[in-house]
Amino acid sequence: MRYVSVLYQGKKALGVREGKGIRIIGEESLEDLLARGVSLKNYGGTFKEGVVVAEQDITYLPPLSRPPKIICVGLNYADHTKESNFVQPDYPTLFFRVNTSLVAHAQPMIRPAVTDSEGLDFEGEIAAVIGKGGRHISPADALEHVAGYSLFNDGSVREYQFKTPQWTVGKNFDGTGAFGPDLVTADELPAGAKGLRLETILNGEVVQSASTDEMVFDVATVISIVSQAITLEPGDVIVTGTPSGIGWARSPKLLMKAGDVCEVRVEGIGALRNVIKDETR
Amino acid sequence: MRYVSVLYQGKKALGVREGKGIRIIGEESLEDLLARGVSLKNYGGTFKEGVVVAEQDITYLPPLSRPPKIICVGLNYADHTKESNFVQPDYPTLFFRVNTSLVAHAQPMIRPAVTDSEGLDFEGEIAAVIGKGGRHISPADALEHVAGYSLFNDGSVREYQFKTPQWTVGKNFDGTGAFGPDLVTADELPAGAKGLRLETILNGEVVQSASTDEMVFDVATVISIVSQAITLEPGDVIVTGTPSGIGWARSPKLLMKAGDVCEVRVEGIGALRNVIKDETR
Repeated sequence: MRYVSVLYQGKKALGVREGKGIRIIGEESLEDLLARGVSLKNYGGTFKEGVVVAEQDITYLPPLSRPPKIICVGLNYADHTKESNFVQPDYPTLFFRVNTSLVAHAQPMIRPAVTDSEGLDFEGEIAAVIGKGGRHISPADALEHVAGYSLFNDGSVREYQFKTPQWTVGKNFDGTGAFGPDLVTADELPAGAKGLRLETILNGEVVQSASTDEMVFDVATVISIVSQAITLEPGDVIVTGTPSGIGWARSPKLLMKAGDVCEVRVEGIGALRNVIKDETR
Repeated sequence: MRYVSVLYQGKKALGVREGKGIRIIGEESLEDLLARGVSLKNYGGTFKEGVVVAEQDITYLPPLSRPPKIICVGLNYADHTKESNFVQPDYPTLFFRVNTSLVAHAQPMIRPAVTDSEGLDFEGEIAAVIGKGGRHISPADALEHVAGYSLFNDGSVREYQFKTPQWTVGKNFDGTGAFGPDLVTADELPAGAKGLRLETILNGEVVQSASTDEMVFDVATVISIVSQAITLEPGDVIVTGTPSGIGWARSPKLLMKAGDVCEVRVEGIGALRNVIKDETR
C-alpha cells in the first residue's frame, strides 16, 4: 500500500495510490495513525468510499510533517565516507534533522540566502518510518518495527556543515530536507529495503548510483543500535545515508542552484523530485 | 511568574508557584499555551481559583515534555572548550536533543546499562524557552522571543559522544537530560539571563561554577544565528552550554554513578536536583 499526505481542497488529507489516482481516505495524519498503533499494511485498503483524485488536484506534503524524531545516518556507504575524507566509524554516525527542515515532493528545495555558500548539495537516500516503537530492539526483531519506506534528499549546506565540529546547521536549513512522496508499506519491498537501486539525478544526469545493499549499517542494524540508547517512537524517521557522488566531493564542485531539478529514484519506492529555488526574504 | 509542569492526582497539570505551594491552574501544557501565542508573563496570575498544593503532593514533569526542538550549544564557555581539547569555533557548535532524553526535576537521571561506559557526566546549563517563533531574528530583537528560562543538566555518555564524528548518541540516551523544575518568565531575570552564577554540585561538592556572562555566544546571539538557518517555533528550547569542570576532563575522571546526587543551581532560577540511577532492563 502506498500512502501520500496531501493538501486537497485546501485541507490536509491522507490518500492512497489507486491506479494513476489518489483515493482520499481521511484527515488523520500518518503520525497520528502510527501513534495509535494502526497497522498501515491494510488500513488504506479498507476504504472503498472516498473520492479518487488526480495528481494535479492535490499538493504534496511530506508523508509525515511532524515525526517525533528524524534520525539520519551519516557515512553509511563506504565510498561516500572515503570521498568525504572521513575514516569509516565502526558505529553509526548519527545526527538529527528537525521538522522545520522538511519539504515535500514537487515543492522547491530552498537554497538559503547566505553569502558564504556556493550552493546546496544533494544526498539521495532511503528513509524508514517506524511503526512500532521500542527500546533495546534486537537486530532479528528490528524490521518488524518498520511501517514502511520513503525517499529523502538530505540537502546539505556544506560550508555550514563544517563550521564547527557538529554538522547540525548545514543539515537543517529550512526547506532543505525533501521527503516523500509515497510511504510504501514494508510488505511491498524486500526485507530492509535491501538490494534496491538508488539513483540521484540532477538536471537529467545520474550523479549518484548505488545498491542499498552497500549500506555499512543496514536498516535492521541501525534500528537495533539506536534503540540501545534511544527509545524509538511510532512515526520516527530513519534516514539511512547517501552513497558516493555528492557535489561537494567533485572537482570542480557540483552544487545546486536556482532552477536545477533534482530527483531521487529508488526502484519499488518511486521518485522524489524537487526544483531548487533561492530563498526570498 | 514561575511555572511548573506536574502530575497531580494522576493527571498532567500546569501550576504556578505561590509562596511555598503550587497553584494548579489547568491542564493545558506550556507547549500548547506557547503554540497558541499566550504570553506567560501574566497568564498564571489571572487564576485566583484553583487548589494550592504542597510540593509533596505532586510529581514534577519537565516544564515542556515535547518541545518542537531542543537546540543545544556546545563549546560555549571558553574554559570548557579548552578542557575538552577543542579549538573555539567562531560559530555556535549546535546539536539537538530529542524529547525521549528528557527527565524531570527530582526524577532519576539514568546511567545506561552499556558496558563500555564508566559513567554519566554532568553539564549544568541554563535553558531558554522560545515564546515567539521566527526566522532571521536580529540580535537586537532576539530577547523578545524568549518566554523564560529554566535549568538543564546535559548528562553525557562520553564514550558514545566520541564514537563517531557526531556527538548525537552520547547526548541522547533516554533519561539523561534533566530539565526544570521551573520555567521562570524572562521579566523576572536580567536580560538574556546574564550575570547569573551557575553552579553544579555533585554529592555536595561544587564541581562547576561560572557566571553566565562567560558564554561565548550569549542567548540573543544564539537565537539570532540559529534563526538565520532554522525557523524557531514557540516552545523550542535552547540549552546554552556548560562551563568548565566536567568530570571527563578531570584526572582522575569524575563520572556519576548510581546513588550520586547532582544539582544545578542558578541564582534567580532555582535548583534542578537528580539522583543517578542505573538503567534496569
